[in-house]
Amino acid sequence: MPLPTARTVADLRAQVRAWKAEGLSVGLVPTMGALHEGHLSLVRLAGQRADRVVASLFVNPTQFAPHEDFAAYPRDEARDARLLAEAGCALLYAPTVPAMYAPDASTTVAVAGVSEPLDGAARPGHFAGVATVVTKLLLQAAPDVAVFGEKDYQQLVVIRRLVRDLDIPVEIIGGPTMRAPDGLALSSRNAYLSAAERAQAPALHQALVQAANRLRAGEAVARVEADAANALRAAGFSRIDYVEARNADSLERLGPGLLAGPARLLAAAVLGKTRLIDNLAV
Amino acid sequence: MPLPTARTVADLRAQVRAWKAEGLSVGLVPTMGALHEGHLSLVRLAGQRADRVVASLFVNPTQFAPHEDFAAYPRDEARDARLLAEAGCALLYAPTVPAMYAPDASTTVAVAGVSEPLDGAARPGHFAGVATVVTKLLLQAAPDVAVFGEKDYQQLVVIRRLVRDLDIPVEIIGGPTMRAPDGLALSSRNAYLSAAERAQAPALHQALVQAANRLRAGEAVARVEADAANALRAAGFSRIDYVEARNADSLERLGPGLLAGPARLLAAAVLGKTRLIDNLAV
Repeated sequence: MPLPTARTVADLRAQVRAWKAEGLSVGLVPTMGALHEGHLSLVRLAGQRADRVVASLFVNPTQFAPHEDFAAYPRDEARDARLLAEAGCALLYAPTVPAMYAPDASTTVAVAGVSEPLDGAARPGHFAGVATVVTKLLLQAAPDVAVFGEKDYQQLVVIRRLVRDLDIPVEIIGGPTMRAPDGLALSSRNAYLSAAERAQAPALHQALVQAANRLRAGEAVARVEADAANALRAAGFSRIDYVEARNADSLERLGPGLLAGPARLLAAAVLGKTRLIDNLAV
Repeated sequence: MPLPTARTVADLRAQVRAWKAEGLSVGLVPTMGALHEGHLSLVRLAGQRADRVVASLFVNPTQFAPHEDFAAYPRDEARDARLLAEAGCALLYAPTVPAMYAPDASTTVAVAGVSEPLDGAARPGHFAGVATVVTKLLLQAAPDVAVFGEKDYQQLVVIRRLVRDLDIPVEIIGGPTMRAPDGLALSSRNAYLSAAERAQAPALHQALVQAANRLRAGEAVARVEADAANALRAAGFSRIDYVEARNADSLERLGPGLLAGPARLLAAAVLGKTRLIDNLAV
């Protein structure tokens, strides 16, 4: 049976309203399509926490900078719908760009602080685009829970913050990062890697694992970060946007000495033409 | 019987949820207190459109600029609660500042375009504060309809825009401006006027009425605006922030010639130490 698909907010709301009238809870998994096992694990997690799972598929133009890969971003809705149905998704919400944004749309949700460093600094405007479209998706679908991957850790922190600050009535759940056997975090952008680059790419995860071990052993943060960046350069990464240990909740920089409280190691680096990100709890 | 009062989001939501479970619709009237007949007319209008009316009372610090009258803004909750109960309000929602804003709150709703001219130019940061707190109030109360006064016309346009752009599931209703017999728009800030200023203040409405008549008669926009500003100066207003005719929906400037489509005349001017605003459909 093909997966039912809603193209408009009205269709989406009609289905969610019908489920809620039956007393069923609803989980939302926002995606940009090009699905892999990482997305599907989020759908299964949502299925454990809610009676019905909606997955959205929307390649959001406002979170891509002008020079980024919006036009080239991989799209295959039929394949995505098949995978979602197999993972237990009950409804695909795949709006068009005009259905999401009025021609004179002018409202932006901005999250100061947690959205500013790291990818916020490397990708100007990215998190304003993410925060605005996620606010819209949450208010369109009105789910009881929404699941986002820890792979995009800063995004998860930004979303938790805006949901709290704007009083959006939803529980945000982070799903663990899925990895290839060699440790590479699953990502739709891995499809851009050549065979040679694919062989080099696991060095990103390895550098984070080693850095996390050294931080746990009490080594100085600045030294561990510098060594991790050097390891990535040695492994063939051409540009290191950041390799940093930060407070896991506030994303504030850690002091130069020992760790205090839960920390997260985050990295972004470019291999060939592909920018990869990864992160790890310390 | 004293008006039931909720101090927290949880208490507010519990009451609204109980009403919705009974099949009752809910209307919200956000206010900053210091209620007058203008506010009460909005409560009565909400009562015509919904089964139960919630009025919020929150003097929102983030919409006052540092030099403005946040600390001095008139507050008398007991009186406000009595007036609301008489007007048919079923619940007062009066949160504290800490209940509304976490110490590290960092999310802002910004509406480009319609929030930039007029009061947006005269009061930097004002509409970001308004847009953020109104988004929060709408998501906290989850009303079916919410009523805002046309007295704050630009605010009404900003709120309609953000509700549409963020897909907040609520109908926004504008309530007509209530006036004293001499034409002065009712406003909590009229309490700041001396007796002599109160006698001069109706010139603001008179200038708008005259300007609207001349625009309808086909006179040039720029000339009508300039004459209205001169009339305010002659009547004793010390600073004219603006007297302008604008598109009623987009708040864009009108061309120099005749009117095209629905327009709105908007004015803000200072009398003594009090800044008054008013507006009129053309």
